[in-house]
Amino acid sequence: MGGDHGPSVTIPAAISFLKKQSDVHLILVGLEDVLRAELKKHHAEAHPRITVKNATEVVTMDDPLEIALRKKKDSSMRVAVELVKDGSANASVSAGNTGALMAVSRYVLKTMAGVDRPAICSIMPNQKGGPTYMLDLGANVDCEPHHLHQFAIMGSVLCAAMENIERPTIGLLNVGTEEIKGNDVVKATGVLLRADHERGKLNFHGNVEGNDIFKGTVDVVVCDGFVGNVTLKAVEGLSRFVKSVFTENIFSMAGALLARKSLKKLNPERYNGAGLLGLKGLVFKSHGGASAFAFEWAIKRAYDAAKYDVQEHLSALIAELMPTTPDAQQQA
Amino acid sequence: MGGDHGPSVTIPAAISFLKKQSDVHLILVGLEDVLRAELKKHHAEAHPRITVKNATEVVTMDDPLEIALRKKKDSSMRVAVELVKDGSANASVSAGNTGALMAVSRYVLKTMAGVDRPAICSIMPNQKGGPTYMLDLGANVDCEPHHLHQFAIMGSVLCAAMENIERPTIGLLNVGTEEIKGNDVVKATGVLLRADHERGKLNFHGNVEGNDIFKGTVDVVVCDGFVGNVTLKAVEGLSRFVKSVFTENIFSMAGALLARKSLKKLNPERYNGAGLLGLKGLVFKSHGGASAFAFEWAIKRAYDAAKYDVQEHLSALIAELMPTTPDAQQQA
Repeated sequence: MGGDHGPSVTIPAAISFLKKQSDVHLILVGLEDVLRAELKKHHAEAHPRITVKNATEVVTMDDPLEIALRKKKDSSMRVAVELVKDGSANASVSAGNTGALMAVSRYVLKTMAGVDRPAICSIMPNQKGGPTYMLDLGANVDCEPHHLHQFAIMGSVLCAAMENIERPTIGLLNVGTEEIKGNDVVKATGVLLRADHERGKLNFHGNVEGNDIFKGTVDVVVCDGFVGNVTLKAVEGLSRFVKSVFTENIFSMAGALLARKSLKKLNPERYNGAGLLGLKGLVFKSHGGASAFAFEWAIKRAYDAAKYDVQEHLSALIAELMPTTPDAQQQA
Repeated sequence: MGGDHGPSVTIPAAISFLKKQSDVHLILVGLEDVLRAELKKHHAEAHPRITVKNATEVVTMDDPLEIALRKKKDSSMRVAVELVKDGSANASVSAGNTGALMAVSRYVLKTMAGVDRPAICSIMPNQKGGPTYMLDLGANVDCEPHHLHQFAIMGSVLCAAMENIERPTIGLLNVGTEEIKGNDVVKATGVLLRADHERGKLNFHGNVEGNDIFKGTVDVVVCDGFVGNVTLKAVEGLSRFVKSVFTENIFSMAGALLARKSLKKLNPERYNGAGLLGLKGLVFKSHGGASAFAFEWAIKRAYDAAKYDVQEHLSALIAELMPTTPDAQQQA
């Protein structure tokens, strides 16, 4: 049902993606009449690789978690995630309310063995031309060192699979690069990550700073969800500011036109599609205001994650590095 | 002695600033021979409003805090701050190592009565055309609610004096705008700030998100030094990335040239000069890599803070809102 813009965005994105990828079948979940009408507009009502699955409710951007979770049991969001749970789908994609999507996904799919808390992982462009993976972007605002440790493992596995990098480098987001820098949680996380590095299990680069995200110093940047969310939104805010500057008069617009090829690499639409990692199933989150072009990237990321067996790789590495989760031990 | 570039940056900046401001006298602190030689280059060795004060040592960007604090007792940084302490100067400006500057300033000047921890406050451009004040940017990586509360008071006073705004609006940096959002420290800080707002003491707007920094939603954004430092550096990193994109080929360069008037408002050099607030004296920090143009802005900020009696306003409001500091109470 597609976040801010609804099926007018998600359906063209789905049709375009199917054109490029011949080995994929999409199940569109939502208000059947609305979806079929939109498909008809695009002459795709009989597309052989599209199935429409009816869901009678829609979680809105303003719905409190309780409504999404307890009241709207036949929401498009929930039905889509249930398709992953029952094996009918390899992954699901939503442009809906992030908090609701995480809550519904945790409730329906449950957390993967060995993971205490799922995290949200997205990518940002960097000056080396590659993406920088960053997590957590807002699922966990209060973190302990073992949570950040698990985020590092999850980010490393996602990056390795999606980018075909054997041992992605991991950086711990901090206020300085020296080991003694940072708050207590980050310093203790550094100890855990260095130990994994010494055992040859994770490729821990060390501490990185905010600017390293865009320098491309490491493949994966790890932080708690508070820092990650604030940083992501600040960066989005600055991007919008820059964009507004380029549309303020005829000279700046002409300038942007001239530089458009170079500016392309900064286009945030290409980086749409965050993974909700650490669940027993793949769920990807598109920006709520995504265009069809951006939403198609989110579908592509979910497709790649399924194709490259992210879940299997993640289970294996988690089992190897974290036979029992510290939170489970505490409860025991 | 001027951070990365030394007197070749600070001296032209000082001379240029004196030309614009007739009521100011500058004391240049550092290796006397070096300073005099640079002044001579600019035909300013006999400038009537410049005094050279000799200091035999220089704190380098790599010096550990202990060296800056205990070994280099005659450093330009320390001597400059001592001029503020003994009343010879109304404010001091340094482009040196931030950690060393804060440590030396705390040691020499001591913390203002009622303030538990000094904080670093800088400004960022926003889409409304004004600056957004933001603190703490890295002095305090582990904060309690009463620290953030004090940062709000300090940022509000600085902004009010520098921008001539009677009651600056204050936003608490968070992962969402609702009161229930955030980690425990931020939620408890919200309670303190709302109480001040209800008593008519502070103009607390509520929670803000990362993008609000650039939207200009509030005049002052409050956060802990970990979040602030990471956000600031991420934003600087993205700015550099954008800049690099505009110099990558002839088309992008021409585009930047066309849009230069609009791009001016994004120029970080205009926002140079962070205040170290909460000390018994004014200290301003310039970016280490500042150009002469940027360093002059840092001098201007220090000048404005002295002229508009920031210290007096701050003491008064702190005394009113925080008669005893929670940290002092705990120790008692």
